[in-house]
Parts: sequence; structure tokens; C-alpha cells
Amino acid sequence: MSKIIRKIVYPGTFDPITKGHEDLISRAARMFDVVTVAVAAGGGKKPLFTQNQRVQMAQDSLKSLENVTVDSFNGLLVEYLRVKHVSVVLRGIRTVSDFEYETQLAEMNRDLYENIETVFLSPAKKYMFVSASMVREIASFQGDISKFVSPAVLLYFDNK
Amino acid sequence: MSKIIRKIVYPGTFDPITKGHEDLISRAARMFDVVTVAVAAGGGKKPLFTQNQRVQMAQDSLKSLENVTVDSFNGLLVEYLRVKHVSVVLRGIRTVSDFEYETQLAEMNRDLYENIETVFLSPAKKYMFVSASMVREIASFQGDISKFVSPAVLLYFDNK
Amino acid sequence: MSKIIRKIVYPGTFDPITKGHEDLISRAARMFDVVTVAVAAGGGKKPLFTQNQRVQMAQDSLKSLENVTVDSFNGLLVEYLRVKHVSVVLRGIRTVSDFEYETQLAEMNRDLYENIETVFLSPAKKYMFVSASMVREIASFQGDISKFVSPAVLLYFDNK
Amino acid sequence: MSKIIRKIVYPGTFDPITKGHEDLISRAARMFDVVTVAVAAGGGKKPLFTQNQRVQMAQDSLKSLENVTVDSFNGLLVEYLRVKHVSVVLRGIRTVSDFEYETQLAEMNRDLYENIETVFLSPAKKYMFVSASMVREIASFQGDISKFVSPAVLLYFDNK
Amino acid sequence: MSKIIRKIVYPGTFDPITKGHEDLISRAARMFDVVTVAVAAGGGKKPLFTQNQRVQMAQDSLKSLENVTVDSFNGLLVEYLRVKHVSVVLRGIRTVSDFEYETQLAEMNRDLYENIETVFLSPAKKYMFVSASMVREIASFQGDISKFVSPAVLLYFDNK
Amino acid sequence: MSKIIRKIVYPGTFDPITKGHEDLISRAARMFDVVTVAVAAGGGKKPLFTQNQRVQMAQDSLKSLENVTVDSFNGLLVEYLRVKHVSVVLRGIRTVSDFEYETQLAEMNRDLYENIETVFLSPAKKYMFVSASMVREIASFQGDISKFVSPAVLLYFDNK
Repeated sequence: MSKIIRKIVYPGTFDPITKGHEDLISRAARMFDVVTVAVAAGGGKKPLFTQNQRVQMAQDSLKSLENVTVDSFNGLLVEYLRVKHVSVVLRGIRTVSDFEYETQLAEMNRDLYENIETVFLSPAKKYMFVSASMVREIASFQGDISKFVSPAVLLYFDNK
Repeated sequence: MSKIIRKIVYPGTFDPITKGHEDLISRAARMFDVVTVAVAAGGGKKPLFTQNQRVQMAQDSLKSLENVTVDSFNGLLVEYLRVKHVSVVLRGIRTVSDFEYETQLAEMNRDLYENIETVFLSPAKKYMFVSASMVREIASFQGDISKFVSPAVLLYFDNK
Repeated sequence: MSKIIRKIVYPGTFDPITKGHEDLISRAARMFDVVTVAVAAGGGKKPLFTQNQRVQMAQDSLKSLENVTVDSFNGLLVEYLRVKHVSVVLRGIRTVSDFEYETQLAEMNRDLYENIETVFLSPAKKYMFVSASMVREIASFQGDISKFVSPAVLLYFDNK
Repeated sequence: MSKIIRKIVYPGTFDPITKGHEDLISRAARMFDVVTVAVAAGGGKKPLFTQNQRVQMAQDSLKSLENVTVDSFNGLLVEYLRVKHVSVVLRGIRTVSDFEYETQLAEMNRDLYENIETVFLSPAKKYMFVSASMVREIASFQGDISKFVSPAVLLYFDNK
Repeated sequence: MSKIIRKIVYPGTFDPITKGHEDLISRAARMFDVVTVAVAAGGGKKPLFTQNQRVQMAQDSLKSLENVTVDSFNGLLVEYLRVKHVSVVLRGIRTVSDFEYETQLAEMNRDLYENIETVFLSPAKKYMFVSASMVREIASFQGDISKFVSPAVLLYFDNK
Repeated sequence: MSKIIRKIVYPGTFDPITKGHEDLISRAARMFDVVTVAVAAGGGKKPLFTQNQRVQMAQDSLKSLENVTVDSFNGLLVEYLRVKHVSVVLRGIRTVSDFEYETQLAEMNRDLYENIETVFLSPAKKYMFVSASMVREIASFQGDISKFVSPAVLLYFDNK
């Protein structure tokens, strides 16, 4: 019996990828055959790092996970999924605000692309309150962010 | 016996008016004698469409509803209501974040204008997750927004 | 031009009616032509007062409001509304939990009776945290509930 | 290359199984190789239907889904999962209250059994507000529950 | 200059006291001069342990904290506070539901006793999801609760 | 017996200080020996008033409270606390969104500075819905903000 390859895409800005993101990705990597981290251009948000840097940081942080690849996309997530023939999306939920925003996004995506399915995972307790925007703020004041991001990501902040 | 004319004002940025807004308005139009859609200048938010365009889009989308009129205002809602001699305001609530923001706004408005009353309605399930900001984002990537806005509004996006 | 009579039904257990309920009812009485307070049997909840007592307490507390009547019902709210030819329901929302429960109820009612419309109002700030179940608990310990219920309701507690 | 069989368990009381549950299960059945619906004894909650009836209703409703089986368990979910060698659990989230309760449960389960992973899915919009407890309440008043449960489940209510 | 003695009361059912409660108490004990854990009778809730057992468990678990004492009370918290001449109350908040319930309780208590002040603390992340009711449920199935309660409390479960 | 001096820091942008902030501060001033209002530079938010003006407004509004001082800081709160040898932080919570944001902030601060403790208080009901951003918006339209800020703060708006 041939088996279906179970694929999931984890889209986001990853500005930068945090230990919370990495925790979610490693959980997904145990549940699915292939996990693609899809780094969005994120133009409207004016990211701190370029899309290329964000892809690199993710690759550096995730290289020990064999079935995880890092990709990038511009434009609509649903178009990216159609082209890649993937219909399952991973999103993390930590707070009620996350939950509501993610539900809204998931439902509008379903209206755009009927087959899309969003899988929600929650991170380990110790990463439950880590947010990329707070990491950027702490770093902007030369605070210590080593508890929130991997050593690979720290290098990118040091070189800024 | 002479009857009181029941009036309600639905204020908002309507950038653009969505099928979710239209659903709420048609519900209000069955419950109240006169519904005024009041398009705010919304300067701080830097709307995608001009106030004039947003008024036009609303008029085009709502023309089949006889007891609905579209108006515009600048400045404080409570001043607009005082001038118009209306004290009942319509607001939609879909999510917990909506609910909290709307409650805060309603309570500050009550402090500014004692007689003001806010009536909350929730849209039909199929419009529960439609948000004007997501519509703008999807449109900015040439995504298909025809499930979220009326044909009249689509024309304005096509001509942008 | 003959005008439509605007009717609204406010269903609940009212065990007992609180100043928060009364505040909502007086607001609705300014917006609608006829407000009917519909006291549910509420069998599953094992109310403290009989349905008859709860109707009486509501009548005693609301007698100064001319366009408000108190009624009672058993069974499904949607059946009561169908028989009474009313399709607008009033519900109060104070907290997020209220909001979610009420939304769920409103949506299931819409599935049962398409024309039903739920209007949500929020009470004055000073009654925002009054709950009938806490009133019962305070009264069970002989606490002073005079800030939360009208004098008419206090008599029923005194006679218990 | 031999592939890993991807298994997921969906535990619950299913008193009764609703169209919302069925919607979630059919989504999971597209993402995982084997889905086991695990009907809990649920003693504390005093279910309306016996565990045996609830298993039967689930089987009758899900018989068209080839990779879905129905099982039952008593005691702790984590023990059931250990015995069955499954570590992935499916839970539905519709509301903020669901989300918080499910997160709390997921985290306590992780403390009891480190490898356990909870996957959250949300149902289609039209089933977003269906709750088994409201179905039981509507049925107790002879209301029409055919929009909320499958014909197979209706039979069990008719025969009660 | 003589200093004011800073006192705080932590009321609750403590059925049983968990590591989450202990975490909050040790935090309060660093901020206030005297912390009184006040075990409520909690009649309505039908506790698993008697009030006397719950007091004993709390005393056994907290004996290393010098400025913490355990007491019990029946009836209204505000009456207990008046008699003890304490006006500051400690409550834990972990979730949104906690937050809303606690705010409602705090506000009704303020209406009953003007000087009352409620101080909210949140526990360490690892105890953020521990709830006494889930501890009781896990224990009822012979699950391992040693991660959630202190060894002193475990003995009471063993002897049940 | 020498007593510990109980200190608490209330950090924020205070753009401007509102009656809600003042209410919280006067509550804290009854519970702690020394309360320091620490006005953050708040560069990212582009405040309406300069840090100096915001300090002055706070001083003018709080001068009647003997054990309250106003200070300012740039950079990370945890660094400020370390330098000042204070580990207790005051934060207000009014809404669920506040609660979640504050919890996230408190937990990330705990990761940066283990001894930090966040004490949450809620304001009086009448200030529950006052927000500095809405005050700024109302003032920008020449609305009456005298219910939301003290006379001392009004002067700064008049002189703008």
C-alpha cells in the first residue's frame, strides 16, 4: 500500500524566528512528513530583517530537523498553497487574541480556497509568552534576548 | 396615536463597506424606521478610499434599502449625533476584541453624551469573519474579494 | 402613514431581577414601542424563586415603565416568539463570557427560526458587574443586597 | 521507504455526536491516516445517553468515513493513549472559552505524558455555534434538532 | 518612624491547595508582611475534602513560610475582612475566564465594603495551567498528581 | 523590629496621565510605602506630549499623594528596576486585551529578571473604560475630556 505524503506549511513573517516558533516546528515535524516554513515578504509590517535574512535565520536555526525546509513567498498565502499543492497550514496559538485573529484568517482563507485546512498547535509552556515583536523591542534596548532566540539568530542581531 | 420615528446611526470608516456591514444594515433596517450609515473621515487611519468614495460605495451597495441613507461626518461622533438629534448607535460585534473595543467606546461616548445608546448586532455566520482590513490586504495582492464585497464595491477596486 | 409597532422580548430566568436587568429594560423601553420581559421556567437551573414569584418581582420592580409588560413561558424561546409574532430579542452583555454564550445562543436560535434577531445592550457601568447568581450567594449569607436589587425584590428575600 | 502511519485520537463525551463533531472528524480524516473517535465514560457529567448508545450513534454517523473508527474508554485519557501507542489528540475550538479550557487540558496532559500533542481544528462556519448541550436542551423541549445532528442521531432521540 | 504592617488575605476553597497556589502565596509573602490563607467553607461546591482537612493540607504545605498563616471562614468574605481589619485581598489570575470572574467578584465586593482592594498576581509559567478541579479529576482516576501538589497534600489523597 | 520599606514602580507612557491612572496610583499608595510613577520615553509610540511634559503632568496631578514620586526612564524597564533596587511592578488591568498583553509582558520580564513581580490592580468602575489613546482622540476633535483627566492635565491640552 502506497502512503500519502503528509505535508504542512507554516507561514509567517519570522522577524526573527523565535524559540517559540522552533518549538512549534519541531512538534509539527513529528506529526507530518514534510514541514515547509514559508517566510512572507511582510511588506506592510516593515520588518526589521530582510526577507532573505529571515529565510537564512530560519534555515540556520532549523538545520537539525531533517524533514523541515524553509521557503519564501510574496503575495497571498492561498496562491502559494495552490502552486505548491499543499492544503494544510500550521499556525500557533498562545493567547485569546492570537486565537481570534487566527480564526478570522483561517475562515477568510477557507472562503478563498475551499480545501485549505488550518492546524493549530500551542507551544511548550516556557515559550508561551515569547513574541517576535517583544524580542525586537528588547534587542533595540540592548537587552538580553538569548532566552528567546537560538544562537544562530543572535548572530544576526549582533551584526546589525 | 402618533408614533415615534425610531432612528439609528451606524458610524464607521467603511473602507470599504463589506457584505458583513450590509448584512448588519439590512437587519437594522427591519428593526428601525430610519437607518443612517455615517461614514467617518477617519484621518488617523489613512483610509484606502477617500471619504467621498466610501460614501459612494455605501450608497451604491445599499440603494435597494428604502429606509437607509448614507451620510458623512468629521470630528466626534457624539457631536454628529447631537446635531442630528439621534441617540441610538449601531455597532457590529463579531469577536471578543470587537466586543471589548466597542464596549470601551460606548462607555466613553456615554460619558460625553449621557443619552447615547449603543445597540450591538452580530452578522450572519457566513459574514462573521469578514473584515475590511483583510479585504484591503487580499485586494492588494490581486486576490478575489468577490465573496466579501458587493459588485458595486468591486468596481471601485478595479478602477484604483 | 401608519407606523409599525416595534416590539422586543427580553427572555431570562430573572432569579431575581436585578438593578442591572432593570437598567437594560429601561434602555430598551426608550428604543422600542413595547418591551416584554419573558420569565423562563428555567427548570434545569433549579431557581431560588418560583416562576410565579419571579414574574411578580419583575412586575413590582418595573411598574413605573408604561410600555413594559411581564410575561412567562415554558419550553423553547423560539416557539414563544412564533406564537407572540415577535422576532426581536433583547440580551445583555457585560463580559466576554456573556458575549460568547449569547452569540452561540443567538446563532442556534437563528438556525431554528430564521427571522429571529438578537439585540445586545450593555448596562450602565455601575451595574456592569451585578450578577443574579452572586446576589443569591450574598443573600444566602445574610449579606446586604440592597445595592443590587430594587426594594420590591428585597421584600421577597426577607419573606423567604 | 516505509512510511509512518499517522494516527490521531479524538476524545470526548459525544452526548450526542453533532454535525460540528462530524465536520471536524472528516477534516482530520483527510489529514491523518487513522482517526479514532474515543467516547469517554463521562461519569461526572451524567450524560443523557449511555456510553454504549453514544458509541453506536458515532458509528452510525461516521460509517462512510473509511479511516475512522469509534472506540470507548474509561479513566484517564493519557492512560488510554499510552496503551494505544498514540500521542496525537484532536480537539475542536470554536470559542475563547473552548480555547482556554482546551489549552489548560492540553498542558496538564503534557505534564502527565510528555509526548502528547494536541492538534486544534476549527469547524466550518455553519457549525461554529453548535453545542451538544444546547442540542440536548432543544430536544428536551421537543425542538427541531435536525440542523445540528445527523439523521442517525435523530433516531436515538426519537426512541428515548 | 513606626511602619504600617502590610497584611493581605488569600481566600479560596483550596480543595486541595496546589503548587500553583503555593507559588502565589510565596510571591505574596515577599511583598507583604503578613499573608493569611483563608480557607472558605465552600458549601455550595461540595468540596472533596472537609474544611478542616483543607486547612491542615495548607498548613502542612506552607509551614516553611514564616509570615504565612492559615485560617478558615464561613459566610461572606467581606464580613471576615471587616472582623480581621484587613482590606487587601489576593487572587490569582491565569486565564481570561479567571480574570473576568475575579473582576466581577472584586467589583461586587467593593460595592459591599468600599475599602476592599484586590491584588491580582499570576503564577510561574509552569503552574499557569494547574487547576484544583483537574487535580481532583486526575486523582479520581488514580492518575499521578505529584507534579501539581506538594508531598504533604499527596498524603491526604493516599489516605482517602 | 525594623520593617522592610515596601516599594512599587508603576511604569507607563502616561500620554497623558488619566483619572484611571490616578485612581490606580492612589490605591497602590495605600498598599505600599513608596510608589514611583516611571514615565517611559516611549519613542516607538510617538507620544503626543514630550517625556518632560508627561512627567510634569503626572507630578501636577499627583502632588497630594505624599508617598508617590514621579520619575522617568529610557530603555528597558528591567534595567531601570535593577538600578533602583525595586522588584515589584504595578500594572492596571481593565479588559481581556489588557490582561493578555500584561501577562505576556510580565512573563518576558520574569525571563529577563527573575525577581521581578507584577501586581495587577483594577480601577474603580467609573474609570474602567478610560483610555489615554481615546482621550487624545477626543481632544484632537476639541471634545470635552474633563471627565477623563484632572484639571492639571487639561491645562497642557489647552496650551498645545
